[in-house]
Order: sequence, then structure tokens, then C-alpha cells
Amino acid sequence: MRLYYSPNSCALASHILLEEVDANYSIAEINFKENEQRQADYLSINAKGRVPALLTEDGILTETPAILLYIAQRYPEKKMVPKDNIFQLAKVQEFNSYLCSTVHVAHAHLSRGSRWADDPLALASMTAKVPETIGACFAFLESSIGDMPWVLGNDYSICDPYLFTVTRWLKRDGVARSNFPKIDAHYGRMKDRLAVRNIVHLHEK
Amino acid sequence: MRLYYSPNSCALASHILLEEVDANYSIAEINFKENEQRQADYLSINAKGRVPALLTEDGILTETPAILLYIAQRYPEKKMVPKDNIFQLAKVQEFNSYLCSTVHVAHAHLSRGSRWADDPLALASMTAKVPETIGACFAFLESSIGDMPWVLGNDYSICDPYLFTVTRWLKRDGVARSNFPKIDAHYGRMKDRLAVRNIVHLHEK
Repeated sequence: MRLYYSPNSCALASHILLEEVDANYSIAEINFKENEQRQADYLSINAKGRVPALLTEDGILTETPAILLYIAQRYPEKKMVPKDNIFQLAKVQEFNSYLCSTVHVAHAHLSRGSRWADDPLALASMTAKVPETIGACFAFLESSIGDMPWVLGNDYSICDPYLFTVTRWLKRDGVARSNFPKIDAHYGRMKDRLAVRNIVHLHEK
Repeated sequence: MRLYYSPNSCALASHILLEEVDANYSIAEINFKENEQRQADYLSINAKGRVPALLTEDGILTETPAILLYIAQRYPEKKMVPKDNIFQLAKVQEFNSYLCSTVHVAHAHLSRGSRWADDPLALASMTAKVPETIGACFAFLESSIGDMPWVLGNDYSICDPYLFTVTRWLKRDGVARSNFPKIDAHYGRMKDRLAVRNIVHLHEK
């Protein structure tokens, strides 16, 4: 497998999971500052011009919730998703779907507002609201996760690297992690994991 | 099971799927004009104040990609998701993740811009860009789906009711369905399905 990523992007979640399952994989950095994600080479991999993309023997996968599910199911012995429990599996997809369609989207209004509006005043208005919207997202997440070590409780899952990834954006979003003690503790536990320590420096440019 | 929905929302996708699998379920309309989604009764079901929500014997599920996966896996004999093929299952989740995190989000900027900005000028600027962003989304979808009857090819899946649901929004988004002949043909095939004809009138208020 080959993971296409850029630093500080949501590709970190997939990268951590590849480490967690001890996958045989390589990485390729797409340089957003050079606009590589919009050049023909990369568009032939992901026509959406986004990261992550995961090249597999069967083809290319995009969208974080799909990539995480695929990696987890490819290494079932690592128990990264609930097995034989369709409700719990759906809860995992619910959590990750919220992160991608609500939390990531709220974050994207900080500096990617031009996806949705052209007027510079509109972009400034979007940026200004990010602390409020991200604050509301994390208030919801704080109330959703329990006092157990991981999102699902005692079992580490594909929800954890994804939550860690969006939590890392809080500082840039103008929101204090300390407002959310459970999230903050989760962040600390994640930082200590070997899988994270192995690769997080590549995402800190 | 009990599906909480509102007309013209993405809950239509889950509703169609419940019909497709011949599920034993009831429905409850949440009246957005009366702001019922923000009242305590409904917030106790879905603290996010959104639809759909699906009440099951095991608890409540939210987020369309999760609900669709759950219903499909609850009725495996209906073959609504690829079985024993983790790559194809991930492709299904990739497709639905794109619909929820990119297409639905682009559509929401038409009249729900206040989620992301407060300035009335910003909301107007967001609304103005919707035909462009939704047009780009559907150009991508048109290039992604083949000439086969359904999103995955010959096999109908949980991608189809969700694609139908967002295609229904094109007119309001100011985009002509006829610009996308494959999408348009898919829309016509979906409209003819018994599952759709049974319930679509409830979503047309």
C-alpha cells in the first residue's frame, strides 16, 4: 500500500492506523504549498485533489472514514473495529462521519473558505466564526466520549487516531484543548502511543 | 426501528433503504419549520439537532453513512452492500462519505450558511457560489459512475438512494440535472423503484 498525505492534514489518521496495524506500506508527500494536489500527476490518483489517498492492489481509496475501515478490516487480528456487531460498527462509522462532515468541515472554514464563497468579507466572516463552531463540536465530543481510555471505551479503534487528528487542529482553530478535559486526556494518551511517536513528526511541517 | 426525518432532508436515503429491505419500522416527522429539531424532546434523541436518527433495539444511530451501513448489514439477504470484499465495501463508504462531507456540505451553504458565518453578506456570498460548487460535485459524480444502472454497476446498493437524495436537491441548487446525463438516467431509474414510489411523497412538503 502507498499513502498519499500532506502535513497537518487529516491523512494523519490513516497514517497512524497503518502504523498501529504494522502494515507494509510506503508514503508519498503531496506538497500543498507547491499546489501539487492540483497537478495532473496527483489528479490521476485522486481527481478530487485532496489527501489522503491510499493505493492498494485493488485500486485507490479516498475519504478518511473509508480508508480507516479498509485498513481495519484488512488486518482483522488487530481488532481496530468491532467484529460481529453491526450496531457497534455503525457507531464507529457514525463517529467518524461526524468528524469528517461536521468537525473537519467546520475547521476548513478557517482557511479554506474559498471552497464555499468568493467575497473576501465572507472568508473573513467564516474565519471569525471557527472558534465558536469548533468549540461547539468539541463540547459535543466531550459529552459523547466517556472517562474510559478510548472513544469506544476500553477498546482502541479507528475512531481514536481520527479524533486525535482533529484535536491537533484546536490550537490553530483558536480553541483551548483544556476546555475539554476528556478530549485533552485522550490527546495525551494518543501522543504516547508508539504508532503516533513513530510518524507524527512527518505531519508537523 | 423508528426513523426520525424531515421532508427534503437527507433522511430520505435511509427511508428508501428501509423500504428496499422491507424492514419493520415506523417514522416520526420532525417539523423544522417549528424548530422541533432544537427542542428538548428531539435533542434527547439526537443531541446534534439534525435528522436522520434511527432508533434501534441497541440504541440510536445518526449520520446517514452509518445508518445506511447498519440497515444493509441488518438485512444481509437483501445484498445492499458488497459481502466478503473489504475493498468494495470501502468503496461504498468512500462514495457515501463524499456525499455527506462534500456534496451535502456544498448544498448546505445555500440556506444554512449561518452554521459557518454570521455576516449577512457572507451568507449571500455562500448562496451565490452554490451552483458552481454543486456543479463541480456533480461533474465529478458524473465522471465517477459508469453507464451501468447503479452506482456500483449491476448491483443496487446503499449508494443509490443516497445519490438519488442529493440529486433531488439540484433544482433548488440552481443546477440543471440534464447537464449530467448519467446522473439524470440514474435519477429516473430510482424514481421508478417501488421503494421510492412508496414513500417519496412524504418528503415533498
